[in-house]
Order: sequence, then C-alpha cells, then structure tokens
Amino acid sequence: MADFRVLVMLILSVVSVCVESKYMVYETARGVVKDKVNVHLVAHTHDDVGWLKTVDQYYVGSNNSIQGACVRNVLDSVVQALLADKNRKFIYVEQAFFQRWWNDQSEKTQAIVKRLVSSGQLEMINGGWCMHDEAAPHYIDMIDQTTYGHKFIKEQFNVTPRIGWQIDPFGHSAVQAYLLGAEVGFDSLFFGRIDYQDRAKRKADKHLEVIWRASKTLGSSSQIFAGAFPENVYEPPTSEFYFEVNADSPIVQDNVNLFDYNVEERVNAFVAAALSQANFTRTNHVMWTMGTDFKYQYAESWFRNMDKFIHYVNKDGRVNALYSTPSIYTDAKYAETNTWPLKEDDYFPYASDINAYWTGYFTSRPALKGYVRMLSGYYLAARQLEAMKGRNKSGPTTDYLADALGTAQHHDAVSGTSQQHVANDYAKRLAIGHKEAEKVVAESIACMLSPKPGCASLATNIQQCPLLNITNCPPTEADLSSGKKLVVVVYNSLGWKRSDVIRLPVASENLAVYDSNEKEIESQIFPIINESISIRNYYTAAYTGKPPTSTPKYWLAFTASVPPLGFSTYTISSTKKPASTPVKEEFYTHTGAQKDDIEIGTGNLKLIYSGSDGKLSHYVNSRSAIDASLKQSYSFYAGFDGTTGLQASGAYIFRPNGTYPIGSQKQNVTVLRGPIYDEVHQKIKSWIYQITRVYKNKEHAEVEFTVGPIPIGDGVGKEIATKISTTIKSNETFYTDSNGRDFIERIRDYRADWDLEVNQPIAGNYYPINLGIYLKDEKSELSVLVDRSVGGSSIVDGELELMLHRRLLYDDGKGVAEAINETVCVGNDCRGLAVQGKYYLRMDPLGEGAKWRRSYGQEIYSPLLLAFTEQDENKRTNFQVSKFSGMDSTYSLPDNVALLTLQELEDGKVLLRLAHLYESGEDKDLSVMTSVELKKLFAKRKITNVSEMSLSANQGRAEMEKKRLVWKVEGSKNDDEPAGQRGGPVDPQKLVVELAPMEIRTFIVTVGKTLSRRLVSSDLSR
Amino acid sequence: MADFRVLVMLILSVVSVCVESKYMVYETARGVVKDKVNVHLVAHTHDDVGWLKTVDQYYVGSNNSIQGACVRNVLDSVVQALLADKNRKFIYVEQAFFQRWWNDQSEKTQAIVKRLVSSGQLEMINGGWCMHDEAAPHYIDMIDQTTYGHKFIKEQFNVTPRIGWQIDPFGHSAVQAYLLGAEVGFDSLFFGRIDYQDRAKRKADKHLEVIWRASKTLGSSSQIFAGAFPENVYEPPTSEFYFEVNADSPIVQDNVNLFDYNVEERVNAFVAAALSQANFTRTNHVMWTMGTDFKYQYAESWFRNMDKFIHYVNKDGRVNALYSTPSIYTDAKYAETNTWPLKEDDYFPYASDINAYWTGYFTSRPALKGYVRMLSGYYLAARQLEAMKGRNKSGPTTDYLADALGTAQHHDAVSGTSQQHVANDYAKRLAIGHKEAEKVVAESIACMLSPKPGCASLATNIQQCPLLNITNCPPTEADLSSGKKLVVVVYNSLGWKRSDVIRLPVASENLAVYDSNEKEIESQIFPIINESISIRNYYTAAYTGKPPTSTPKYWLAFTASVPPLGFSTYTISSTKKPASTPVKEEFYTHTGAQKDDIEIGTGNLKLIYSGSDGKLSHYVNSRSAIDASLKQSYSFYAGFDGTTGLQASGAYIFRPNGTYPIGSQKQNVTVLRGPIYDEVHQKIKSWIYQITRVYKNKEHAEVEFTVGPIPIGDGVGKEIATKISTTIKSNETFYTDSNGRDFIERIRDYRADWDLEVNQPIAGNYYPINLGIYLKDEKSELSVLVDRSVGGSSIVDGELELMLHRRLLYDDGKGVAEAINETVCVGNDCRGLAVQGKYYLRMDPLGEGAKWRRSYGQEIYSPLLLAFTEQDENKRTNFQVSKFSGMDSTYSLPDNVALLTLQELEDGKVLLRLAHLYESGEDKDLSVMTSVELKKLFAKRKITNVSEMSLSANQGRAEMEKKRLVWKVEGSKNDDEPAGQRGGPVDPQKLVVELAPMEIRTFIVTVGKTLSRRLVSSDLSR
Repeated sequence: MADFRVLVMLILSVVSVCVESKYMVYETARGVVKDKVNVHLVAHTHDDVGWLKTVDQYYVGSNNSIQGACVRNVLDSVVQALLADKNRKFIYVEQAFFQRWWNDQSEKTQAIVKRLVSSGQLEMINGGWCMHDEAAPHYIDMIDQTTYGHKFIKEQFNVTPRIGWQIDPFGHSAVQAYLLGAEVGFDSLFFGRIDYQDRAKRKADKHLEVIWRASKTLGSSSQIFAGAFPENVYEPPTSEFYFEVNADSPIVQDNVNLFDYNVEERVNAFVAAALSQANFTRTNHVMWTMGTDFKYQYAESWFRNMDKFIHYVNKDGRVNALYSTPSIYTDAKYAETNTWPLKEDDYFPYASDINAYWTGYFTSRPALKGYVRMLSGYYLAARQLEAMKGRNKSGPTTDYLADALGTAQHHDAVSGTSQQHVANDYAKRLAIGHKEAEKVVAESIACMLSPKPGCASLATNIQQCPLLNITNCPPTEADLSSGKKLVVVVYNSLGWKRSDVIRLPVASENLAVYDSNEKEIESQIFPIINESISIRNYYTAAYTGKPPTSTPKYWLAFTASVPPLGFSTYTISSTKKPASTPVKEEFYTHTGAQKDDIEIGTGNLKLIYSGSDGKLSHYVNSRSAIDASLKQSYSFYAGFDGTTGLQASGAYIFRPNGTYPIGSQKQNVTVLRGPIYDEVHQKIKSWIYQITRVYKNKEHAEVEFTVGPIPIGDGVGKEIATKISTTIKSNETFYTDSNGRDFIERIRDYRADWDLEVNQPIAGNYYPINLGIYLKDEKSELSVLVDRSVGGSSIVDGELELMLHRRLLYDDGKGVAEAINETVCVGNDCRGLAVQGKYYLRMDPLGEGAKWRRSYGQEIYSPLLLAFTEQDENKRTNFQVSKFSGMDSTYSLPDNVALLTLQELEDGKVLLRLAHLYESGEDKDLSVMTSVELKKLFAKRKITNVSEMSLSANQGRAEMEKKRLVWKVEGSKNDDEPAGQRGGPVDPQKLVVELAPMEIRTFIVTVGKTLSRRLVSSDLSR
Repeated sequence: MADFRVLVMLILSVVSVCVESKYMVYETARGVVKDKVNVHLVAHTHDDVGWLKTVDQYYVGSNNSIQGACVRNVLDSVVQALLADKNRKFIYVEQAFFQRWWNDQSEKTQAIVKRLVSSGQLEMINGGWCMHDEAAPHYIDMIDQTTYGHKFIKEQFNVTPRIGWQIDPFGHSAVQAYLLGAEVGFDSLFFGRIDYQDRAKRKADKHLEVIWRASKTLGSSSQIFAGAFPENVYEPPTSEFYFEVNADSPIVQDNVNLFDYNVEERVNAFVAAALSQANFTRTNHVMWTMGTDFKYQYAESWFRNMDKFIHYVNKDGRVNALYSTPSIYTDAKYAETNTWPLKEDDYFPYASDINAYWTGYFTSRPALKGYVRMLSGYYLAARQLEAMKGRNKSGPTTDYLADALGTAQHHDAVSGTSQQHVANDYAKRLAIGHKEAEKVVAESIACMLSPKPGCASLATNIQQCPLLNITNCPPTEADLSSGKKLVVVVYNSLGWKRSDVIRLPVASENLAVYDSNEKEIESQIFPIINESISIRNYYTAAYTGKPPTSTPKYWLAFTASVPPLGFSTYTISSTKKPASTPVKEEFYTHTGAQKDDIEIGTGNLKLIYSGSDGKLSHYVNSRSAIDASLKQSYSFYAGFDGTTGLQASGAYIFRPNGTYPIGSQKQNVTVLRGPIYDEVHQKIKSWIYQITRVYKNKEHAEVEFTVGPIPIGDGVGKEIATKISTTIKSNETFYTDSNGRDFIERIRDYRADWDLEVNQPIAGNYYPINLGIYLKDEKSELSVLVDRSVGGSSIVDGELELMLHRRLLYDDGKGVAEAINETVCVGNDCRGLAVQGKYYLRMDPLGEGAKWRRSYGQEIYSPLLLAFTEQDENKRTNFQVSKFSGMDSTYSLPDNVALLTLQELEDGKVLLRLAHLYESGEDKDLSVMTSVELKKLFAKRKITNVSEMSLSANQGRAEMEKKRLVWKVEGSKNDDEPAGQRGGPVDPQKLVVELAPMEIRTFIVTVGKTLSRRLVSSDLSR
C-alpha cells in the first residue's frame, strides 16, 4: 500500500529499542575447566609452500586471480591481533614463509614477535621449512628440511617446537610418526586426512586419537600420541565457524543496538558442535582447528568472533571454550590419561571417497621427483665437500640448495600436485641451488686437488655435467686429439670404499683410460643410439635455450674405484686406435624369428631372453643358484575421464578405467656386449625405449626406461606401468618402504585396522615407494629398487609393478584445478614430457635380499659425483693430489651404517648424523648393534666435544628425552611395552658411537680450534 | 626428461641471487611538487548505508553470502594502518557507519582516532549520515541528514567537513551543488557518475572540473568547484591498482630476494595511468580514488602497496605521487588557478551507456518513497512539538526518526535500488522512528491540551492514525452512540494559518462536527467503497499481523481551520439522525450510453467529463477564466526483458519496450457529490482505481490513484504511467524541480552541455520530480504536484506524464541483483504491491502557477497532523486548551517564507531554518526580499542570542564565508559574476531576518533561562 509499515506488530514488541552503547570487553582468559567439555580453539593458517601459486607469490600475495592468498597479510595481521588481547593465541607452521616475513620486519617488530613467541601467544608448530609430503620424500630430505626450519626457530626464538602438525598431507607415513615425530622430540602429531572407512570406524570406536608405534624395531621408544581430526580435514567443525574477511559464516552479533542480535543462536550452534565432537572423542577435550588454507589474512576478523564465542559460551556454561594450541591440548589430554589405543604401521593409502584413492600422486611429475632425488644425494655430497674445504663466509654455499630442497619437500611439490607453473618454480629453485652448490663442489675439489692458498679460484677449471643424463657432457665430448687429457674426478660420498662403472659420452672411439697410478685400465666403447641423440638435442635446447652444436658418438665406460668419503682421479687421453684391452663391441639385431634364447651377462648374473618372442624369460644367478622365470612388460591404465561429473584420475587421484598392454606379442631386441656390461635395447613403442644392463661385477639388472611423450591423440589420459612377473607364491603380500627407511608389509585388499570394503582393486593397493618394493615366498625374493619416488604395488601374486609416468587430461577435482599433462617446449614446439629413469631388480634366495636392498639402495641415493678438468699432456700442473679419503685411510664405516649428514655449521661446528640401515631381524648378520669410531671418521682432527642431539638438532637428546611426555598403550603394562634397543652414551674419551638397528643418532661435534679449519683433510691442509 | 632444469639459461643471467635482507622503510612523506604531474592518492572506501545488505549487516559483516562487506573491519584496520605511518591518509564519509563503530570503541581508541582526525590523517568528507541520493530526496531531508552527520563530527572532533563527495549517486542535482555544497561551506564537490556522452565531451574539452553555478537565483554566491571523475565511477584508474585482500591487481613486488620483482613494470604502469589522466585534466594535479565499495577491510593491504608506489614512483621521478585527500587536492588545484569553466543546471538524467538511462529509479519502490516523504513532513512537525514541550532527557525523542530518515536518504534507500530485504529494513527503521516520534507528538499534544505537571502521562489518551491512508483509524471508527465524544486535534506545522478538509472513516452516518467554540460546522458523509475496504482488510493484516475486526462505513469530512504553528480542536459526536446541514450525498452511475457531459465541482473549478466516453475532457476555472481541454489516461511501458544479455529495465534503469494504453475506449464513471467536495470514481482496471476530487474551496483537482498489483501473468514487467494532456504549445519544454526546490527548464531530446545523441527517446527524457512538473505556452500553464518522489516527463507537447509504479521481472545488471518486483504477504498469500498516492493538477494563466506550486507544495509536504482523544459528553475534563498558536497570535510568516526547521537541541538552544520559497522572477509579487520577525515567531520568549550558521549548522556563517575558497568562471571578470541577492545581517535588537529569493538561513537561537523551558507556548506554560 502507500507505505511500508512492515512489521509494526513485531516492532511494538521490542521493549527497549536503544540501549546505551558501551565499549565491550570480552572475557577471554579462560583456561581448561574440569568436568566440562573443553573446546580448544586452535587459531591456525595452513600455508602451502607452493601449490596453485608459487611460494613467493603466496608470500607477497601476487597472482590472486589464481587464488586469493597473501601470507604477509596473515603474519602482519596476526601480530596485531595478538597484541590486542594477550589471551589470544596463534600457531605458525611453515618456516619458508615465516622466514620471508621475518626478513621484512623491522627490529622493533622482531622484538615484539619474540615476546609473543616467548609468552606462548605465538607458537611455532611442526616448524620445518614446509609441511613435507609423507609419500614422495626420502627420509633424509625430511630430516634436512625439518632441521633447516628448526634451526631458524632455535636461533631466533630459542624454542623447540613440541608438536607434529601434518594436517594436509594425503596419507601418513610410519617414518613421519616415529622419526620426524618421536625422534624430533614431539609430544604429539596431528593430521587431517585418513581413509574415509578408517575414519568412520575410528569415530565409532573413539579411536581417532591413538598411540602410534610406527617402528617395529624401535617400538615404544619411538611412539607418539597421534590424533586424526574428525572431519573437514583441518577446518572449523561446521560451515558456521569461518571468520575470514568475507566468509559466509554467521558472525556473532552481540550489539543490542543493532538488528540481527544472535548470541543465543550462535552459542547454541557452538555447544551443539562441541557436544557432537565430544561424542566420539576421548576425554573432556576437543580441538577445533580454527582456520584453513591461507586464512587470517585479516586476523582480527577471526579473533573478534572467537573472543565473543569464548565470552558468551562460557557465560552460557554448558561447555568451556578457550584459546588454545596443540601443545595445550596435548597437555590437557595427557593430564587426563596417558593411555590410548595402539596404532601400528602407517595411514597409506588415503581414500577420501569410494573412488578417490590418492595414490596417483605417488608417481605424478616423475621428472620433478627424479630431480629432487638426484639433488638430495648431491646436497649430501656437496655438504661433505663444503665441510672439507671450510664453509665460505661469503661466496657460494649449499644454503640455497638447502632452501630449494626444503621447499621441494612440500606436500604439493615433490608430490607432483602443484600447478604446472609452480612445478616450474620448484625446478627453477632447485636449478639455482644446484648451480650454487656446483660452485661449492668445484671449489672444494679444486682445493683438494691443489691444496694451496687461492685454490678456490681454480674452481673455474672444474666442470660438472648436470645434463649427463641426457647424454650431454661438454668436457667429455671435447676433442682430445691435440694432446690434452681429460681428468675425471670421482667423488664417493658414502662411508664405504666403492667401485662403480662410469659412463661418459665421447666424440671418438680412440681413447684410453688411466687410473691415478697412471696405469691404463679396462674401458668399453658403445655407440650412442639415435634415440639418445634425439633426446639430447631436444632437451638441451629446451633447458639451455640452444641446441648442442656437436654430437658425441660413443659411450666410454670404465670402472672407478673410490675410497670412502673421498675421491679418485682417472685420466682419459687420445690413442691412435681404439683402446687395446677392450674388445670392440659387436652388434646384432634380433628379428623375432630366431629360435635360440639370448643370454646376456658375463658375470654371475645372466638374463635370458626368449628366442621366440624376444622377451625376458629367465633370471639366472650362478653364485646364488637362482634360476627363475622372470617376465617384464609395459601396460597403461586409461585414466577415468570424469566428464560425467564422476571422479577423474588426476594429479592426486589414481582412478583407472581399464588396463591395456603396451607392445607387440613379439619384440625386436638389440644386444650390445662388452667386457664391463652388456645392454639389451628394446623399442617397445615409438615412445617407450628400454635399455637393460647386466654388469659383469653386479648381481642385479639395471633397467633404464625412456617413457614419453605419452600419446593422448585418442583423448584418453594414460598412466604407464611396468610389471615384473615371477612364479613366486607371494600370497597377496608384498613390502614397500616408508620414505626409504622401514619396510612395511602390505597385503592386497586388506587393512589391518578395519574390514576393507574394496572399491578400487588396483588404485586401492598402490603404495608409495622411495627405496624399493619386494615380495617373497618360502624360497626366494624379488626386489626392485627405484631411483626416485614412485607408486607401486603387487596386483597379482608373484608380480610387482611400478607406475612410471602419468599424462592425464582431466582435473581430479581435489584442488589443483589442472590436468597433469606435462609438456616441454622448444620455441612453440611443445611435446609431452618424456621421462627417463632407472630401476634395479634382483632375485635372491629367501633372507638374502636385504643386504642388496640396503647397501645398493645407498649407492642409488648417492651416486658417484663426477667432475672434470683438463690437463696438458704429461703435465700434472693442475693438481697435486690424485686420490684421497676424508676419513682415516684405513677406516670404513660398518656395512650397516650410513653417514646421513656431515655438515659444517655457521659456527664451525659439525652436524653429524649416523644411521643404522637395518631393521631388527632384517638381515641375519647386519641387524645387530654396531659402532662408529668418530676419531677415525674425523681422522687427524681433534674432537673437543660431542653433544648428542634430537634428530633435528635443536635440543640435546637427553633434555629432549627428559621433558617428553610418556604415552602408554591401552591394555598394556609397563613391562609389555616393547622398547627398541638403543646405542649407549658416547664416552668422551673413546668417542665410539653405538647404533642399534634402525637407530639414527645426531651429534654436534666440536673440533679443536688449534687445528686447521678444514675438518678431515689433514693430508690436504698443509 | 628426467629432470626439470627449466630456465637454466635465464638463471645463469641472474647476477645476484640473494641480496642481504633489510627492513625496508618507504619514503612516503612527499607533498605536492611543482612542475610535475602530481598524483593525489585518495584512500577511501565507499560504504553504502544499506544496499544488498542492511546497514547493520554491512557494519558487523554478517550476511556475507550476499556481499562480502564489513565496515567494522574497514575502520578497525584503517586506524591500525594510519598509526603505522603518519604520512598515510584516509577519508571517511558515511556517519551512519562511523557512529556505529565509534560506539564500539574504547576510550583509548577514541582518543587515538581523535588525534588522527586532528592531524588530518583521517579526514571526514561529505559527513552526512549517508551519501544521500540526489534524485529522490526532498531538500529538507538532505539538509536534515547532513546536519545530523555534521553535528556528530563537530561534537566529537570539532571539525567541519570541507568537501562534498557524492561519488556514487546516479546523477547530480542542482540543489546538491549549491545548497548541500556551497551553502554547507564546502570548497568542492566530487562525483563519479555523469552521462557517458557528457563525460566523453568533457574529457575532450578538459571540462570534467568546472565551476558549478547551480542556482540561477543565488548565482556566484552559491557556486562550487565540482569535479567529475574520469572513469570507472570512483575506483582506481585502471584494473591494476586495486589492493583489497585477494584482489587481482599486480602488487608491487620489490623484494629482490624473491621472484617476480616488478618495480619498474609497476612504476611504468603507474606513470602511464597518471599521464593518461593528465591528458584530459587541467593543472598538474590528478586525483586517484584508491578504493571502492566496502574496501579497506584490511587496510594495510592497500597502504602497503601505496607506500611502495609513492616511494618508487618518486624515485623514478617522472611524476610525483603523494598521499592526499580531496581537500589537499582542492587546495592544490586552487593554488594553480581559481578560474574554471562554467556549468549550470544539473547532471540529470544519467546514462551509463546507450540503452542504460538511470531514470527508472526515480519511481522505483513508490511505496517506500511515499513513506519517506510522509515521515519527512511528520518529523518536521514532531520536532516543533518536541521543542514546544521541551526535549525529553530520557523517554521518547525524535532522534530515532532522525536516524531512520537519515538512513533512508541513502542513494540506495529512497532511490528504491536496494534489495527487497534491505528495503524492508529501511521501512522497519522508519516505523520504529515513527512510533517513537508519535509518542513525542502525543506527549506534546497532551501537554498543550492540559498544561500542568505530569501532563505527559496523559499522552496515553492521545491516539494517532498512521494507517489512515488505508482507511484504518480505530478512534474515529469507534461507536459514539453511548455519549462519548471524539476530539480531533489538528496541528498545522506551517507558519501560515490554514484551512483544509479532514476526512475520517466512521461507523455511522449520524454524526455532527463542532469547532473549538462548540459550534456545529458543515460536514459531509460519503460511503466507503468496497475497494477501500478490501485494501484496508488485506494491508491491515499484512502490517499488523491481524485483520481489522470491524468495518467503517462512511467517510466523514469537514473543513478544519488552524492557526500557524498551532492547533485547533474539533469535536465529533453522535446525533439521532444524519447531520442536519450537509445534504446527504447522492449517487449515480454513468453507464457510458449517456450523452450529456458530466460537470464536477461546486466552486470556481469544474472538471468536465465527456458523456460519450466517460473521460475527462475539460478544465474550467471561472475565476481565472481558464477553459481548456484536459485529458487524462493510463498506459504502461513494457519493461525490456534483457534475456538476450541486453540491457533490461530494472530497479535503476528505465528501458521501455513499447508503450501500451490501459483501459477501455469508454469508461464507467461514478460520481459522488457533496457540499465540501465532489468525487469521480473510475475503475480503470481491476488493478487501477482512481478517485478525482474537486473541492469547493480549492482550485486544483486532487487525483488519488490505487495502482497494483500490476499483472505479470504474461511474463512482461510493466511500468505504469499516467498522462495529462492539454493543447498547450509547450514547444518541447517543461520544468521539473530540483529536490523540491528550484525549477529547472528541460527540453526534450536536448542537453545544454553537448549535442545529444538520442538513443532512448522516452527514458532519456525522464527527470526526477519531488515537488512538481509544469509546462506552459504564451497563455497558460499546466502544473502537476506530487506527494512523493517520482519520475516524469513531457514526451509530447502539451502533455505531462508521471510514472506511478513499476513491477519488473529482470535485474538490470547494475548491481542490485534482483528484479524490482514488490509483493505484500498475509501468511502465504503474497500479492503484487498496490500503491496508493495522490497528485494534484491545476491550470493557470501564464505567470500565475508559481504561487500555487509553492504554497500548496508546502501543504502537501506538511499535511495537517491529526490526533484523537475521547471526551465524556459535555465534560471538558480531558483538556483545558482547545486552540493554540505557537507564534504571536497576530503573526504569520510571509507567504514566501517557510519554516524548515524548528528544533530544540540537547543544550536547549534552538535550531531554526527559514527559507524563501521563490526563485528570482518566479512570481511577480513574491520573488522579492522578505523578512521574518523572530520576536514574533518566538512569541513571548526572550531571545538572548542569534547566531547565523552554515546550512548544516556546524560553523558560523561568517566564519564559513571567510575561509571558503573563492572560485571564478573562466572568461568572466569579477564584475560579471552574477552574485545573488542576500538578506542582510540580523540586528540583535530588532531580530528581523531578511530573506532574498531562494535564500535559506540557518540560526542557532538562544532563549533566556529565566523563562520557562517551553519555547513558545507561554500561554500554556502557566
């Protein structure tokens, strides 16, 4: 009608329209209250160290059209919000971001933040450089990146994080729980993602929170309190409690002078959500993760509403709400009881729904995964070399590589689940770090070769070949006919003496190889195949911007023998004719019509290829008396396309839509034979090329595959697997490693923790592999080791499979918003990415596989580091030292011990990590207590102090043990708890470190100031 | 390939990868620099006082699913950001929000903010309660809401806003420029929206910034510097400079240790945008409006980037960037030159594109517009009554109504361009304010009737009838047969004696009316038609939640005569038979077959209806010798549906798709005749009912229309217009008022400022009407006055049209995101909104229309205020006073003067505004200097001081004049500037206020303490 007297009736009932306005002070000081449900409000932001945007873009808040996110806003505004009320608390996790921010702050702000950290208002949680993935990273990388973050926190704030906070990774590893959890000194570990079936059962059983005893070997000494969140990953409990700027959740409107006052309604919603959670949670404490990805860009918006909830909910009194942190929550849980249900093994694989198994990412971006692994080993070696030379105060260091590798461990980095431009950013950072570390390595090698003042400047004469894997190595390809000699420096970062075959592309077949005693040694020349040249040309152009100008013709191979932590030099020079000793290689081509089987290998190991179809048929080891059927093939899974709105296969998810064999019934084979190794070449398809090598002195086969560009012209995304089949009766059981460390038993279509409803019989049986996978029966074992993180399984008894590469055409709807469809471009010519890699396979009598898996696993992780320099004919002008060991020359680490870290810190002290490589019972000889003599490891340097530290080296081990909460498993008595064996204390006189099976011990070693800064190379330093 | 050495080449060219991090201090102190283009960065937020969300929802940040917006965040975070750097500046505009926030702050924060305001870091701009619309509000409402905001600012901060900032309203009025701009003391006025053709020409001519001389009468004395923004309404110059949290614009990345460093690129973009703007801007100063709707929710995000721009752009040096405000910008312009191009009249209508004429909103939500106007007049009267009684310290005041009316003037409120739920909120606020003001009125009337201690408690006996317009008035409907008498108190808020007809619904025809001398007066009884009862029943149920329980049968009418600023009382009592004097009404129905014309009216005015078709055909005034053809009809414009992505007709936009007549060729007519007035009833359609009244003692016709529910069953939205046609040769010219004040000449399909390209020949000729519209030729004038804001035009010579109601089915894409399709519900029964309103038409000899338009316009704005009380038969127990004038009983204001404001302030002083009603030359007798005797206006109260103030009363008038910048029009000499006439200073002894044509003068009047607090009612107070 002519006016709007709407609601007149309602208005008449409003008794007091306008109440005098008053500044409202909220009572937020409340702590835990006994006998009430306590709602621990944990204010947090989850800041991916790269995902849809690069880490820098996330930090500065650029590229917001992709995702609105700015970590700088978060930290800026959180500090303001914490200052506004001393009861407010916040946790921060990712140090990659925190450090960027820290460097932008004034001293005044830094001082304020130090006070906030000191008072506990701002608590550093987890505290690594990133929240690393738990499937794709190697445990050494996990340790390194955690150490890198913890070090920063310790230095700036003198605190040690207490809590593991792996809220987003897509499945959770045993190594995370016991090594990066308990051994770091954490009192608890929290995460968001576990299998949906598992979660349902755990909620029903009140088993979301458990004692996770993830190491069979270390047992209760490495267990941790572990909590899986009940819902929504790591977000507030319902959609009603998000308070980001512009979020939809209903705010608490408590101003009676304004309309829509809703305090009662909001309090009721809060209490209902709290009681609902309490229904499946043990004790009177529930945690609310108040935040999610990149939230708190304007922190006040969250805290304002939490202030009100705490005030009004506590006034209401049905439940108790408080500002909390995971530490406070953990302590409150512990105060009620330290006894919880037991959880063993791990939380892999992770399914978020019937058809959503997050097992595709175990292989996604295999090239990036390979690059990370390659640099991981390089970083280990480079730090050794850096320490030997003495850390640079200015000039190149390995720090940038540490940063880049730390960043790359993020759960959307090496996991392969970032957007393409972000994957490029990770690679760029790695390349920069690699480049700088190469300088460190070159300087150190220059100084070891010529120990004299100014030796570092000779580094410009030292070349390395980062593109050797694509047959590109300018120094070895150089023309030596003018009389120059090529010197090959071969560095061994392992603690053992080691022999390995070096393969170099060369321009001529008229070459001879000499050892450091100038004695010619056996070498071998193979032709470089066209496929390798083609890849060399294309990828060199793609990586460096220009194609190579010349073409090498041959692979020159020889066996290098190198002392532990040391190097040997080999010299290559021109000859008038091909080297005398090695018989020049003979070629022959298998046509498929041939009847006789083809036998490959000149040592103990022989591979037999069928004469009728050209395929691998038998594995024979004359020493160990293995003679077994062995087949190998390729197939692809068609990626489910999800076009009908269903779950697609994508960066995260593996959802196969049928399995299809690749290759013909009969296969052409090319065999190359030489004195050092034989090669079998098989061109399976135009886009799959495979070379199998059998070395005279090795008892495993090496398979080098080149897969890609995966064809997608048919509109079908494909996931490429290779299968290795035997007649071993493996009884649905196989073993995969946890982050390259412990092996865990896997049983097909089975989970120990619940009755599995099988929806995806292939994807649901995939597991991450970092070291290897094996299976066995009562007689023998089949082991496969890998050169990078990869997904694998055993879908059929006796058969192992690895997924080598994936190219998919649909996004899988889990956030990355891109299909994983990698290409490489030269100008406008873009091709699907080809991936080249290796795996290694071996069969052993039952019980004998572990030795190879462990020791050769170390060799794969730490390949020989090669450097090159030239030398004028017959003149040793360029260097004085041709062979060297950083350790006592008579010493070698025990076979069951690896040197994980040897790193000079800024203060000149040395960070040392030693690892026992065997699990309890894994090997009859090596699964025993062992020891390392530090005096010999550090040779003639005087050790003035050795402090044992926590794994991440941010606190003394004893201090850590003393303050750590002691958890118990429900139903067990103290005596029942199987504590792992541990090495004893280090006697400061004897300086011998004992290591029990699977034990990793971390030390800060102080070396005497009277000696040279150079740590171990006393032979060099004078 | 097997790794990702992407960009190796590029990386090698990065000279210095890692530079030592250092806390960056930005140089932001820069002021204006001569001889450079100065970019004035004006950080601002535009906070609609209701639009998609209600004002409270915007303030607290609720309902974010509709729009992410929280003004509390803005003000909280702006204060923090300003504290972080004393060079940063921010402007704030809407006091409705600012006051909500202010009341939530601690004293500490208030003290900080006072310092920020005092230092100029935070500047209050515009400063009204809202940024009022410029088409739909009445100028008195604009003054009131501006005063309301300015008062708050003055009280809290002791500052007066210097700048008009009407950046969003959809067209700009002359009254805004001269009255709410110059007369408020503003030095400049800025706005964003002007016609796209106009803007193009102004940019080409460098005429965006002008001297706007909007009042023909007041001339250069009320002109103002006025700037239209060049693009994008009121946003940053290009899409590259938005820095809200999560905005897409590229941030300035100046950290050399991170990737994507882009300082040069960003500086270049800044300089390019600055130079581009400088190309069409006079002087070396350009303004960048750094913000837009509800931005700065996290202010640091904007300031951080502006800091960097100022730092790096100034380092670059091509242009000069600075933190600025519109004040600083205005001063800088002035410093270069005070001489600018001339602009006259106004900026209506506004088109943003060829087919996007924002002329629909002139009529959108006509019911809300009517309610606002009704309460505007009520508020004026209520403040008078409040002042007469003495302002309550506690208890009811008119403040909530001031607040609600202030809020309702917002450019998405009375404009009709809010979402429906927000329109409901405006109506709710008005209803609450109305309710409280009714109590004030009732108390005042009770005390005037019975001046004795405790008189206010008698207010419960005083009833008012807010639903009288829907024939609902319980006190008049009561059964008086038991001997009770009904007393009608009739209050006149005008300064003139006045007679008007009162119409009341009653239950019986046996009633007699007596004046305050107890003398029976003439009355008239008409039956209440079924249509009115039907509306009464439905809307009473809709508004009050229950239908009425009884039904009145008759309209009782009589003529009340009331002294200026005073009241009369009339008594109605039961009689045995119908009142003797009035002849009982006779009905007859016109069948359409009749031949004789029907003549209506018993006084000078007669309307003639055709006997052949039942339609109005002639207007005859025997006194003024007008005998003219006059037709009246209804039609609708079909709303363009925009389904094809084209521009639809909607809340803002009028885009007709054809004009269609409504009603039959022949029309039934019902005529009711009485001694006081005659009525012609016409049921045009089931949903259009019209009653035309001709009063014996008035020379205009009153047309009461009921339009709606507009049928939409055919899927076509409709906009209903009524057309009044004469044979006047108006020569494409007509006149419409500016906010109810000045009349502006309009010429069809023509704009004075540019050569109009006509795209929308109807929509493009619509103008807002608040007072009326008229046209004329050499002999006569046709005037139509309206009861609320409405759109109107003259599309055909001699014809005026008003758009009365709009119901549309599509959103017009200008932001409101709803179709304007109003419904009213009783339970689940929802019907299209029916609108009832009135317009008044009159024809005069040329030159004689102004008197009626001005004086009757005041009567429409300020209808007689009615209150009712009962009295036992023959006992005057309930009151002692039956007639009263607040002024000297011998005094009346001059015919050309209106009392705009008479309001008691909190300190007991009186705010007084007097307005001359005529423009220069408008009327031969009344367009002259006139005067008001304050002593008589304030009767026997002693005036101890009179201070003349600026229009919004926040500063002395002389002080304002002294400090105001003096602008000049290009090409004119000082002597050429036509300064308007002004009244002289007020002699403190004589206390006579002179008023020149169109002058409004504002005073703070102090009355002596020795007299009673009651201001003017000395006859009453003792």
